Amino acid sequence: MKKFINHVDSLLDESLRGFAKAHADLVEVNPEPCFIKRKQPGNAGKVAVISGGGSGHEPLHSGYVGRGMLDAACPGQIFTSPGPDQMLAAAQAVENGGGVLFIVKNYAGDVMNFEMAAEMLECPVETVLVQDDISLPKEHDIGRRGVAGTLMVEKIVGAAAEEGADLAALKALGDRVAERTATFGVALSGCNVPALGGPTFTLPADKVELGVGIHGEHGRELMDFSSATEIVKRMGEAIEDELPLSKGQPVLLHVNGLGATTLMELYLVYELAYDFWKQHGLDIRRSLVGNYTTALDMAGCSISLTLLEDELTRLWDAPVHTPGLRWGC
Amino acid sequence: MKKFINHVDSLLDESLRGFAKAHADLVEVNPEPCFIKRKQPGNAGKVAVISGGGSGHEPLHSGYVGRGMLDAACPGQIFTSPGPDQMLAAAQAVENGGGVLFIVKNYAGDVMNFEMAAEMLECPVETVLVQDDISLPKEHDIGRRGVAGTLMVEKIVGAAAEEGADLAALKALGDRVAERTATFGVALSGCNVPALGGPTFTLPADKVELGVGIHGEHGRELMDFSSATEIVKRMGEAIEDELPLSKGQPVLLHVNGLGATTLMELYLVYELAYDFWKQHGLDIRRSLVGNYTTALDMAGCSISLTLLEDELTRLWDAPVHTPGLRWGC
Repeated sequence: MKKFINHVDSLLDESLRGFAKAHADLVEVNPEPCFIKRKQPGNAGKVAVISGGGSGHEPLHSGYVGRGMLDAACPGQIFTSPGPDQMLAAAQAVENGGGVLFIVKNYAGDVMNFEMAAEMLECPVETVLVQDDISLPKEHDIGRRGVAGTLMVEKIVGAAAEEGADLAALKALGDRVAERTATFGVALSGCNVPALGGPTFTLPADKVELGVGIHGEHGRELMDFSSATEIVKRMGEAIEDELPLSKGQPVLLHVNGLGATTLMELYLVYELAYDFWKQHGLDIRRSLVGNYTTALDMAGCSISLTLLEDELTRLWDAPVHTPGLRWGC
Repeated sequence: MKKFINHVDSLLDESLRGFAKAHADLVEVNPEPCFIKRKQPGNAGKVAVISGGGSGHEPLHSGYVGRGMLDAACPGQIFTSPGPDQMLAAAQAVENGGGVLFIVKNYAGDVMNFEMAAEMLECPVETVLVQDDISLPKEHDIGRRGVAGTLMVEKIVGAAAEEGADLAALKALGDRVAERTATFGVALSGCNVPALGGPTFTLPADKVELGVGIHGEHGRELMDFSSATEIVKRMGEAIEDELPLSKGQPVLLHVNGLGATTLMELYLVYELAYDFWKQHGLDIRRSLVGNYTTALDMAGCSISLTLLEDELTRLWDAPVHTPGLRWGC
């Protein structure tokens, strides 16, 4: 497998060193245990907002460390949970008198390790669990996966934390955004994992995986490849079955590329999704189109909808200054 | 070929409609003849800065329309020059009393059509030709190609235009940035062109194309795939042969993804390139890492170096607010 790497074992480390140099004005990387923290800490008493998870989804989460979003992020090896020592060290480094909020995508290893870190910390800790991937049934035995909707939780909670909201308020806000967000992904190909030396799965030339996860987990069904319009319709219908949608509902529409899909296609998907939701009477107030939560080099995309209300829209618009998301400053 | 498209013929149009909706605060798309213009025009007397070229390189150029960069962009079909009617209409729409500056990547069709448009325009027009791809010899019969370095020309010239520089000054500035910029690209795979129904070229599993262009044009040689360090060394040596580098020279280092290469790899390449140039005594003052000038879904990347001086650094840092590049506002 041809990739710009030297050795599988040093990939994350070498990549993070480049990341730290390229964004030396915004972030610092602590090598051991490994975490990324923002260079300019928030005000005293600010709640420390921390996320993390396996690598391979960049810019999530490392790219969202900075003012108005995360105080720290803990990267695991590719598609592998970071350890509790990383989360503990990150929390100790950025806790600033306001306690710690963990934002955790719902994967068994991540959940367990963040729980262990929470138990070891001596300051107040709350956790927001993100389970926005609606491709699995709600009653799935390990719950639903956290995918591209994690960005909306991190952005909105991060903005409120910057404004001085306390830990209980941030926990409630994070839960509210997570509940109001649904994502559905589609793969046109698997992704190549360096440690495997090849793809996670292979799709037949005429098939599309509906409901794929960001590690290449199987979704609901293999669908015959037809047209972008048909695929987007199926994605929209799946989301429609989940969220309490009513005419005039303001929403944020996020089309996320999984890695190898061109921006031309992502904007085309956005156009079709926009039409789909307009026909359902939704008020598309905010948009985000691009590669924000990737699955290495997978060809595919996801559509996320977050139900907005004035306060959530205001927090979405609030200034953010991170390597991967920046506006208002 | 599985792609998020409906028909090859409607791909650009559907994609641009989505682009216009997703960035309705920043840009407007004129459908026929097709061009993108910024929503809030600059001050009266501001020189109109316009670029364009075949699609498939997004966010270049459409994503760089907005305050502090381009006033308009003309997209052709994928890898196909836009027509002079598009350039003429774009120029007439955004010309604001200061004349027009065309920024043109050096491809025969683009050059010819921008020249035709310049002849038809009744206002003063100047053209900056970008030929930053140093993989071809300087004396190549059609000159060198314009690739990822185009962004630096558009950003720096766009900032000066916003500040009120006149047409002659912008032409001189654009030429200066273009001369001081060198790019070298490497492909790990070809890219899939929808109209072809497949890849532009296929590389053997153990080979890398050194000096590839952004349409998959052949470069200098097929190199055995070895390590990221070896590939980056070869890229650096090629650039070193071209630019007048001296110890302490301040530079902008841009690592650009060609489409399907992960951010983890791009940051790793940045780390290696940073080391390479540090060993040569350069002062790496500014960085840009990500997918800025793509070649559809090609796996690969390019390294660009721009020789900075105080004025160029100041203009690079000046506020920019476009769909694809944003800071300072």
